[in-house]
Amino acid sequence: MSICEDKKLEGLDSIRGDFPVLAREVDGRTVNYLDSAATTLKPQSVIDAVTRYYTEFTANIHRGRHRLSEEASDRYEEARYKVALLTNSASNEVIFVRNTTEAINLANHCIGLTKDDFVVCCLDNHHSHFLPWLRHGNVVLVEQTEEMQPDLEHFAELLKLKPKVVALTHCSNVTGNYIPLDVMSKMAHEAGALVVVDAAQSAAHRKLNFSESYIDFLAISSHKMLGPSGIGCLIGKADLLRDGEPMLVGGGVVDYVTADSYQYRKLPHKYEAGTPAIEASYGFGAAIDYLESIGFDRIEAHEKQLSKAFIESINNKPNLACLGQMSLENRAPIFSLYVKGVSDLSDICRALSDSYGVMCRNGHLCAQPLVDHYAGGQVIRMSAYIYNTVDEIEAALEALNSVVQSYV
Amino acid sequence: MSICEDKKLEGLDSIRGDFPVLAREVDGRTVNYLDSAATTLKPQSVIDAVTRYYTEFTANIHRGRHRLSEEASDRYEEARYKVALLTNSASNEVIFVRNTTEAINLANHCIGLTKDDFVVCCLDNHHSHFLPWLRHGNVVLVEQTEEMQPDLEHFAELLKLKPKVVALTHCSNVTGNYIPLDVMSKMAHEAGALVVVDAAQSAAHRKLNFSESYIDFLAISSHKMLGPSGIGCLIGKADLLRDGEPMLVGGGVVDYVTADSYQYRKLPHKYEAGTPAIEASYGFGAAIDYLESIGFDRIEAHEKQLSKAFIESINNKPNLACLGQMSLENRAPIFSLYVKGVSDLSDICRALSDSYGVMCRNGHLCAQPLVDHYAGGQVIRMSAYIYNTVDEIEAALEALNSVVQSYV
Repeated sequence: MSICEDKKLEGLDSIRGDFPVLAREVDGRTVNYLDSAATTLKPQSVIDAVTRYYTEFTANIHRGRHRLSEEASDRYEEARYKVALLTNSASNEVIFVRNTTEAINLANHCIGLTKDDFVVCCLDNHHSHFLPWLRHGNVVLVEQTEEMQPDLEHFAELLKLKPKVVALTHCSNVTGNYIPLDVMSKMAHEAGALVVVDAAQSAAHRKLNFSESYIDFLAISSHKMLGPSGIGCLIGKADLLRDGEPMLVGGGVVDYVTADSYQYRKLPHKYEAGTPAIEASYGFGAAIDYLESIGFDRIEAHEKQLSKAFIESINNKPNLACLGQMSLENRAPIFSLYVKGVSDLSDICRALSDSYGVMCRNGHLCAQPLVDHYAGGQVIRMSAYIYNTVDEIEAALEALNSVVQSYV
Repeated sequence: MSICEDKKLEGLDSIRGDFPVLAREVDGRTVNYLDSAATTLKPQSVIDAVTRYYTEFTANIHRGRHRLSEEASDRYEEARYKVALLTNSASNEVIFVRNTTEAINLANHCIGLTKDDFVVCCLDNHHSHFLPWLRHGNVVLVEQTEEMQPDLEHFAELLKLKPKVVALTHCSNVTGNYIPLDVMSKMAHEAGALVVVDAAQSAAHRKLNFSESYIDFLAISSHKMLGPSGIGCLIGKADLLRDGEPMLVGGGVVDYVTADSYQYRKLPHKYEAGTPAIEASYGFGAAIDYLESIGFDRIEAHEKQLSKAFIESINNKPNLACLGQMSLENRAPIFSLYVKGVSDLSDICRALSDSYGVMCRNGHLCAQPLVDHYAGGQVIRMSAYIYNTVDEIEAALEALNSVVQSYV
């Protein structure tokens, strides 16, 4: 069943035309883009929002009284407001950073850890949500169940250590699993821990509600949400952000400077030193508009169709196996595959790209402890999003199966 | 004399058409953009380089074997190579960061300071090149001469303190003065100090030569060089970068990760955690191509004409005065003006914008110690670049003079 025939997704059939890259051919084949967990494609409205900065109101922000600077500044703050609305947070809790990685490092810096502080991490955390905690704290890992979900009994045991931080990943970039975020963050909160959530893989897929959660810090990236690269957000509880120290100091973060002292500006400016990624913020704002115009219910329903197609296609290919659960519940259309008997998957990935137009990824996916443990170091990951069709997924798995024949 | 009539600048008369914003009108008046020290306008080739990422090869970099990812990665590294060629540095010495501010904070972090370490700063350093040193080190300030140049005798005295760092600003964003960089960095080097240079205001105006200098760290920003915002570089001597610790850890900076250890990648990747500003790097590369196609000799010659026009226009306006030297030597076309008898310049700046289309800036310009000391807290800054004409400068000063009449 193609996306066009699915009545529940009425209207989504037209969106492929919004993404210019989908018109591209590689060696005569249409691009079958299945690497959205690495970065999403960008719709025309995002491109237009970025280029308008260059053609209509190029200026630096926040420090000028002239018209171009005021227009540029207003739109930058408008983008922040859109993030706040999307995530149900307050504007002054939204800090623009480069990417999720910087967001998590900033949360880490804000909190301030010593090597005596326990940090509970999950095995499927991305390196970005693992290394900062490993560098400054004492990391303990939650065991996983057979379904590759965090073992909640073990989690409860670890919380008895009174960790300072619990570092959760809303949706794994490897398995596509969503953890029971509400349950785990509530447990962490009740144990007195600060809850830091990596939502890089979920923010463009599920509606987040920061204010009504037990989350203290939430990290997201524009480029995984249909927006430009170079911008993301740390969303943090205002009182924690107020108490924290910025990592970077310079222009924009201070109200007053003398030869031997300085005074920080209010939130959120205290954390945004120097000229930010101005046009990227406009693109990010346009991406949020685009997401809202589609609606998270429709996104989730469409993704369920895509996941179903993945599961059915994998199930009838005996040489392929999948890391993690093969059910439709609580999952994103992200599937990490290993090929029985084949360890280096680079050539396979290359063949999929060059002979079939299928763009997917191989390696440890920046989650090496997990991928080493379960898949001997490498997987092939296919990740789909709103612009993908069921036909594309079936074609990609057929292609993979054909390529694999020559290896096994 | 307009730029078109100047035979030495043959060809530069055509470049205004490359900058789409210059076609914009504000309330029926053509934009007279004199705020290039805050951010430069962007030529069409830069816009095209950014949008090609969205329309032709959207992908994340460095971690994929598929065609789009390889194209995206190659272009990102190509941009790095262009920076290296522009500044005569090695590619592995070029670290992509968000802006000059992050670059200087990263240099600071790499060096590692204690409160016992002396840092010599100049009074005209931007807050970004002052606050990081003030936060971690023991800052001493070089006195200035009447021409607002650093007093080299006093500088030599301060070097006897054996400072760990000398923090120099190649060209002041307030006065437009170039310091004697070669002389001062050599003196600093001979005194055993590390030399960190903020070249945000000079990199698009004068040719830099990192390898053959005494500079240890050099900071530049794309957005002040005709390129996108959201990307800049720290250029550092390879041995210092190798010894330093990154500020941010996460995906991309590590070769190998286990549950309790990790190993950094080689330079420059060790310092680039998470998804970078990919399309901004392409725009930056295109900006460098554009700069090289014009040539720094022609840029400098044109700027001299612009500075001459500023000086002549200011000299016959008795209500206006200029911060810093009024000679043509060693200066950029950046002029900070104060209006005799008027302290708050915001309304004047607003009137210039809305009634005359002149976009310039007022305030302390993120150099508050300097502007407080010499101008009572505020100046109006007009800063010109290659797309400006002598006529525009004359018109801007006439406009300022007219507006000022109602205040004095």
